[in-house]
Amino acid sequence: VIDARTAARDAGMGRRINTIMQTCFFALSGVLPRDEAIEKIKAAIEKTYMRKGAEIVQLNFKAVDASLDHLHKVEVPNKVSSTKEMAAAVSDLAPAFVKEVTVPMLIGHGDDLPVSSIPVDGTYPSGTARWEKRNIADFIPLWEPEVCIQCGNCSFVCPHSVIRARFYDQSTLDNAPATFESAPVSARGFPDARYTLQIYVEDCTGCGLCVEACPAYDQNDKSRKAINMVDKDPVTEAGIINTEFFDTIPVNSRATVNFGSIRGAQFLEPLFEFSGACAGCGETPYVRLLTQLFGPRLLVANATGCSSIYGGNLPATPWSMNKEGRGPAWSNSLFEDNAEFGLGMRVSADQQLAMAKQILSEMTDHFDQEFIDSLLATDQDIGTEMNQQRDRVGELKSRLKEIDDPRAKSLLTVADHLVRRSVWLVGGDGWAYDIGSSGLDHALASGRNINVLVLDTEVYSNTGGQASKSTPMAATAKFAAAGKAVTKKDLGLQAISYGNVYVARVAFGANAQQTLQAIREAEAYPGPSIILAYSPCIAHGIDLKDGLSQQEKAVDSGYWPLIRYNPELRKQGKKPFILDSTRPSIKLEEFAYNEQRYKILQKNNPVEAERLMKLAQESLDLRWQTYEHMAEQEPAEFQPIS
Amino acid sequence: VIDARTAARDAGMGRRINTIMQTCFFALSGVLPRDEAIEKIKAAIEKTYMRKGAEIVQLNFKAVDASLDHLHKVEVPNKVSSTKEMAAAVSDLAPAFVKEVTVPMLIGHGDDLPVSSIPVDGTYPSGTARWEKRNIADFIPLWEPEVCIQCGNCSFVCPHSVIRARFYDQSTLDNAPATFESAPVSARGFPDARYTLQIYVEDCTGCGLCVEACPAYDQNDKSRKAINMVDKDPVTEAGIINTEFFDTIPVNSRATVNFGSIRGAQFLEPLFEFSGACAGCGETPYVRLLTQLFGPRLLVANATGCSSIYGGNLPATPWSMNKEGRGPAWSNSLFEDNAEFGLGMRVSADQQLAMAKQILSEMTDHFDQEFIDSLLATDQDIGTEMNQQRDRVGELKSRLKEIDDPRAKSLLTVADHLVRRSVWLVGGDGWAYDIGSSGLDHALASGRNINVLVLDTEVYSNTGGQASKSTPMAATAKFAAAGKAVTKKDLGLQAISYGNVYVARVAFGANAQQTLQAIREAEAYPGPSIILAYSPCIAHGIDLKDGLSQQEKAVDSGYWPLIRYNPELRKQGKKPFILDSTRPSIKLEEFAYNEQRYKILQKNNPVEAERLMKLAQESLDLRWQTYEHMAEQEPAEFQPIS
Repeated sequence: VIDARTAARDAGMGRRINTIMQTCFFALSGVLPRDEAIEKIKAAIEKTYMRKGAEIVQLNFKAVDASLDHLHKVEVPNKVSSTKEMAAAVSDLAPAFVKEVTVPMLIGHGDDLPVSSIPVDGTYPSGTARWEKRNIADFIPLWEPEVCIQCGNCSFVCPHSVIRARFYDQSTLDNAPATFESAPVSARGFPDARYTLQIYVEDCTGCGLCVEACPAYDQNDKSRKAINMVDKDPVTEAGIINTEFFDTIPVNSRATVNFGSIRGAQFLEPLFEFSGACAGCGETPYVRLLTQLFGPRLLVANATGCSSIYGGNLPATPWSMNKEGRGPAWSNSLFEDNAEFGLGMRVSADQQLAMAKQILSEMTDHFDQEFIDSLLATDQDIGTEMNQQRDRVGELKSRLKEIDDPRAKSLLTVADHLVRRSVWLVGGDGWAYDIGSSGLDHALASGRNINVLVLDTEVYSNTGGQASKSTPMAATAKFAAAGKAVTKKDLGLQAISYGNVYVARVAFGANAQQTLQAIREAEAYPGPSIILAYSPCIAHGIDLKDGLSQQEKAVDSGYWPLIRYNPELRKQGKKPFILDSTRPSIKLEEFAYNEQRYKILQKNNPVEAERLMKLAQESLDLRWQTYEHMAEQEPAEFQPIS
Repeated sequence: VIDARTAARDAGMGRRINTIMQTCFFALSGVLPRDEAIEKIKAAIEKTYMRKGAEIVQLNFKAVDASLDHLHKVEVPNKVSSTKEMAAAVSDLAPAFVKEVTVPMLIGHGDDLPVSSIPVDGTYPSGTARWEKRNIADFIPLWEPEVCIQCGNCSFVCPHSVIRARFYDQSTLDNAPATFESAPVSARGFPDARYTLQIYVEDCTGCGLCVEACPAYDQNDKSRKAINMVDKDPVTEAGIINTEFFDTIPVNSRATVNFGSIRGAQFLEPLFEFSGACAGCGETPYVRLLTQLFGPRLLVANATGCSSIYGGNLPATPWSMNKEGRGPAWSNSLFEDNAEFGLGMRVSADQQLAMAKQILSEMTDHFDQEFIDSLLATDQDIGTEMNQQRDRVGELKSRLKEIDDPRAKSLLTVADHLVRRSVWLVGGDGWAYDIGSSGLDHALASGRNINVLVLDTEVYSNTGGQASKSTPMAATAKFAAAGKAVTKKDLGLQAISYGNVYVARVAFGANAQQTLQAIREAEAYPGPSIILAYSPCIAHGIDLKDGLSQQEKAVDSGYWPLIRYNPELRKQGKKPFILDSTRPSIKLEEFAYNEQRYKILQKNNPVEAERLMKLAQESLDLRWQTYEHMAEQEPAEFQPIS
């Protein structure tokens, strides 16, 4: 038995155990004399990691040297002596489909499934990843109710939707497990309400972003925040019980929280839970937020890439549904046509809505005019209106089922479209900047009410970090190992050139509130919208725990200016281009040289690195100048002809 | 025999003879009683043309009524009585390939050609269209030497390269045909030089643009310009003789003319002659100009579309060569990959140049250092330098042939690249705005020294006028019969977003000088360049003779602002964005409603036409405001960090 995790952690290698396992293998196998084996392993390490820097090599050497101390011999008894049963693959509460189809695939018996058990049209039930308890973290966050200020930052940055907040009447606690934690809710007007921040212990990946995001300290112990990483094992059992209890508490109604703020948004139910994305993934917080804001009426066209893999790799999907069974409808299409795919969802929804309106308006012989008008006239700009409309549509549908008329049958097939849909085209920069750019341009040019979320990792992440047109100048990537010599494409400016496209550039770790606002504005905007979302990625060569501070530096250096371009503002006599971040206060290199993608070039070719860094800084300066100038443009209607 | 041309012209139908031919067919065939036939023809006309307006219908009615007056009975004699021989398909001076391969195809006997006569690698000789004397014009321009101010406007706008100017010593006239016209050259310092403007009578399509472009009037007769349309037949014979003589006069050296002006550019030899484009085509003047400016070193990647058809439809190609056998290398690729195709030409040329330089610099044992340096160091920014380099490369090549060394053989294969290449990616808006936009974006993002010429007709012209993202709001097109409801994509702004791309929007009929300047600047710019060239097209529903005045109105209304964005200017401390046209002085509708593509909607749905025209005007106003604001941006280097 090898305690590789401890060995790696002690050596400063984080979770990387490959050299430790290799050392133990050679020690046990006797293929080579031990000293010779270690010598050769070290030579291989030097060859492999030298370009990442001498420090990385030294850490690996240290791990190798300490490896054998963590190798323990265990005698295997002649017969089974344990009284423990193997845990079931999934909870007994899981639905039949999960037990019958998902589980056999999960445990590696997918080949035994009969074809008849697979959905005939390829439509899979959602909400299946939540049954797959992966328990991959060694350390998980623990909440400290008395330190917590209930700001919502931790749940906002959580890439795996494992930190959730609810408030409830204190009587709810009557049935709570003894270990269940709560605090008085820190909001005026709710004297009897309690607040709980629940960690989904088995689903947490241990990335630590929540702790990084926490702004609250114990006044008596500055090392103690309102949320802290602790050894997982001692808290797992209580955590499971508490999570189960937490799940029984009703989700707070959207009408009772101000989800225009991060503090309020923490109460919104995520319908994207427990994806297999990397621990600390910089993409999934944006995806989770979409489902919190628009989940029950969300249609998602997802381009191939990391997001399509963690979004829908068999057998489980994290795309989920609420207690009423409503949630996002999601599908994946190719790199080269995902924008068209999503545009088609919009066109189809619009067409079916038009059909529904047409038929409904003609059925005056079955419905009174007031009911018809109430269904047709609703604005549905706010959640309450949408809920009311959903209720009305429910009533319509049940009444339609009673009517023996071909129009009733037709209307039943399209009536759901009377509730406003939110169509999102989601994908990475490989899709949006490169392979799918023509289709994206075409979709934006359509003027249709589509929303685009670009999860910008600045490389093709899923295939291992190849350069895209989003890769920044002076950074390295696959196919740009000598440093990218041309600037990053400004997809935002290209979209702004249409004049009627809502455009925002956001970074949730730098300004969560601006992210929230931009995504809500984009969805509310009645034409095309595009959000460029900065997404820290392992391909950047950082510990993803530092993803938040790197986002801050990206913004502070002017590398990732936060902008919103809202054509609606022009109609209101306001300037449409808003710079949400301030003038750069640090140099690009203060951001860049925290990341291996830049540092590698500095090490391998310092002259070229310096040259490219200078050019990259100049291009940032120019862009900032251009943005400031654009932000000054008056919205006044120009009358060129006297 | 039907004199349909006269009938059509007299009825105000221009060259459209279809209804006249139809009427005569029914009159001769006796399929229907004459009156009934005419009644049915008129009903068909009404059905077909009513959406183009009552006026068009009436013109057709008038043509039908007059048709039978132009139908003449000719008795065919029993035996051949003519003493005329059928003219040869091509001149006896044509090269063997034309006689043996091109001609059989031209006269419809292509199927009889053996496969062995076709070039094995698909590479066709250029300059073959000039042998195909089509003689399609009824009226051609006639030059009036004493009225002419030798401005060059007529040859600049000529879509078919049939108007050429040369100056020469007056002794040249000693051998001239009696009918050969000339005038003293209107430039100081050339007392003995004569000037001739030659019309290539058999190649002219009779479009009349030259007359529209002519600014000079006979002071005694304001109806007489320096160039006027005349009946072709009486002047053809002399025209052929004079053209043959004109061809013997040497092309003026580039060193002796200022081709930075339209006046000077008329002396540059076009290497694109006598294409099969529509009479009055708005694209070909740009293509012709490219060959005049850069012909002998031009590499052209041509996207599928009109320009690929008139550029290379078997059996003949108008892409041509000069007396030294040098001219453009041209190839066509698909809509969806032409930009990549052209980028590949650039990459390949760069690579071969690097190889040539590498090998040459190592061959110090064969060449003295001075010779090597002269070949390596040349700037080649101006024509003289390029000619000198071409001479040096010629010397290098002949010396290499004498050297028995593998390096010499290698260098021979790439030595031509030591003369600077000019790589152009040419295509229409269907390519650049739509189907090829992703590749175009990728090519522009490469930072490479490519040049893009977009022949913007604002529809897919070659397939019959389908809407593209370039089609303007409020215009109709196929697939946008109800009027395009979204604005034209601003490809210029999208390209400008890169910061290092030279961008110009030009219209040769509105500002020829700006067109000339932009194309020269684009080529000189050491990075990517793109020229958006407004190209009147039959799909606009105008008489192409009005293409120049429509271009003027397009610019005057702000519909087509003339711009140049030159990143080099920023380095010089100048503002990079230049607005070459003045504030709009007329409304969009004053431009638009001269064109059927707009008028049709006004007729069929005046309410929608008015709504869209208002929105279109607003979007023009906004664009102009944006451009003016951009033109104000200071180039000063911005220093964000103190």
